[in-house]
Amino acid sequence: MELYSIGVDLGGTNLRVASFDRDNGLRESIELSTRRQEGRGAIISDLCDAVESLIQKFAGRQECAGIGVATPGPMELPEGRLLDPPNLPGWENFELRQELERRLKRTVIVENVANVAALAECLLGQGKELRFKSLCMLTLGTGVGSGIILNGRIWHGMNGMAGESGHVSVDPDGPLCACGTRGCLELSASATGLVRLARERIAQNPESGLGANLRHKPDFTAIDLFDLAKDGDSNAIQIFEAQGRALGRGLASLVNLLNLPLYVLGGGVAAGWELFAPRCLRN
Amino acid sequence: MELYSIGVDLGGTNLRVASFDRDNGLRESIELSTRRQEGRGAIISDLCDAVESLIQKFAGRQECAGIGVATPGPMELPEGRLLDPPNLPGWENFELRQELERRLKRTVIVENVANVAALAECLLGQGKELRFKSLCMLTLGTGVGSGIILNGRIWHGMNGMAGESGHVSVDPDGPLCACGTRGCLELSASATGLVRLARERIAQNPESGLGANLRHKPDFTAIDLFDLAKDGDSNAIQIFEAQGRALGRGLASLVNLLNLPLYVLGGGVAAGWELFAPRCLRN
Repeated sequence: MELYSIGVDLGGTNLRVASFDRDNGLRESIELSTRRQEGRGAIISDLCDAVESLIQKFAGRQECAGIGVATPGPMELPEGRLLDPPNLPGWENFELRQELERRLKRTVIVENVANVAALAECLLGQGKELRFKSLCMLTLGTGVGSGIILNGRIWHGMNGMAGESGHVSVDPDGPLCACGTRGCLELSASATGLVRLARERIAQNPESGLGANLRHKPDFTAIDLFDLAKDGDSNAIQIFEAQGRALGRGLASLVNLLNLPLYVLGGGVAAGWELFAPRCLRN
Repeated sequence: MELYSIGVDLGGTNLRVASFDRDNGLRESIELSTRRQEGRGAIISDLCDAVESLIQKFAGRQECAGIGVATPGPMELPEGRLLDPPNLPGWENFELRQELERRLKRTVIVENVANVAALAECLLGQGKELRFKSLCMLTLGTGVGSGIILNGRIWHGMNGMAGESGHVSVDPDGPLCACGTRGCLELSASATGLVRLARERIAQNPESGLGANLRHKPDFTAIDLFDLAKDGDSNAIQIFEAQGRALGRGLASLVNLLNLPLYVLGGGVAAGWELFAPRCLRN
């Protein structure tokens, strides 16, 4: 019988479940909201129900080879134990792989979503395009996720915690990160980091154009900063330059340690490339 | 016929050539000074003569499987082209592997000495002892060399330049390194770096105990600083603390990126462990 697989993207906002086979690629997909308010049990039930409904759909015609689940990190492998995922509060020390295998009675692989993104980029994206089997991908989103692919495989390190580029220090005397390190790349190169840099500037100089523009929008986002920079606001432009400088420092460490042929930037914040790239590439 | 191999340690000071076989380990060795004054041609001749003399010694009884040469980096692989080795001036862009194979008419492998040290530590040293197949070794000497071993093999990166931990920035606003990065680990964690830190302090405060102690020794070394720190000189102690802080920052980046089970410190400066470790391990 022909084989297919099921992929699950368990994020803090969306829960996506889809089936794939070798000949047709994506077959069926189910997209749900992640019911964070209802807690872990409800989310696990939603996930398992969606997987079962796909399995039922193909029953008798195709065989499910296994289920791959991407979740926010950090996660300990091979156990598939979530440590303290900021986007999934209440999941600390939860052995996700074991629980899913118990409920679904099938082989489940769980993996940090940043590693999955990097592997996909290697096998299906720029890695395939440029014929590189090793790369590092940084996803600049709410945080900075990252995965390292060496010779076509995820580099997990001793317990799945490798590839945490977002926690390379680029400002050792800078602010303390929740991880315990000072001046982590994530604190400057993520959407949250850009907002943090903007708040710092506004606090220093409330009467600046930036302060005036955002006075009536206390919940401003990186997109607001992007729009202001595009409109020529000098403080907003400097915030993206600071992001670029941080990213350049982080990438320089990656280059010196890993000497990879390809570094890929993804995530929503990568849309600001033109604003941060000049400073990023300069040193 | 039984096989043996020849290993060459081509350093800026010493040129060591030795033969090894599987049953007996080290068999014969030749130790020469590296004739840097006479230039590259003389050194290559010394190296080839020493190799040939060992081959003659075993002729008819054992077969030479190949020759491995460790040299200071940076070096481009697979060509074995030296780039700009600070310890071997005049060797820029020299294709060492090709030249040695042409003269010796045998298979030659050339490798960055820091990578060789790391591989030896993995196969014969702490890696073997603790049963870890992945590690990073930092050799704290004149500079900071480093090699990364993943699953028992040197991680070379795309062209042999991986594992340059000495050029991870630990002080991004710090002094400019010859490599183009600011505040490289090597500038604080090597013997040269310790002397640099001491000169900075003496310039700031010539009347300190450190300044007074070293006034009549303009060519003081890291060993002098070590002795002063052991004697309780507060400035000397603080220099080793600064080294420890830099090393801690560099190791934190390595931990976050590679998540290896073992980090090994070697080289002469590692003898200062008790002086720099407390600060190194604290953050």
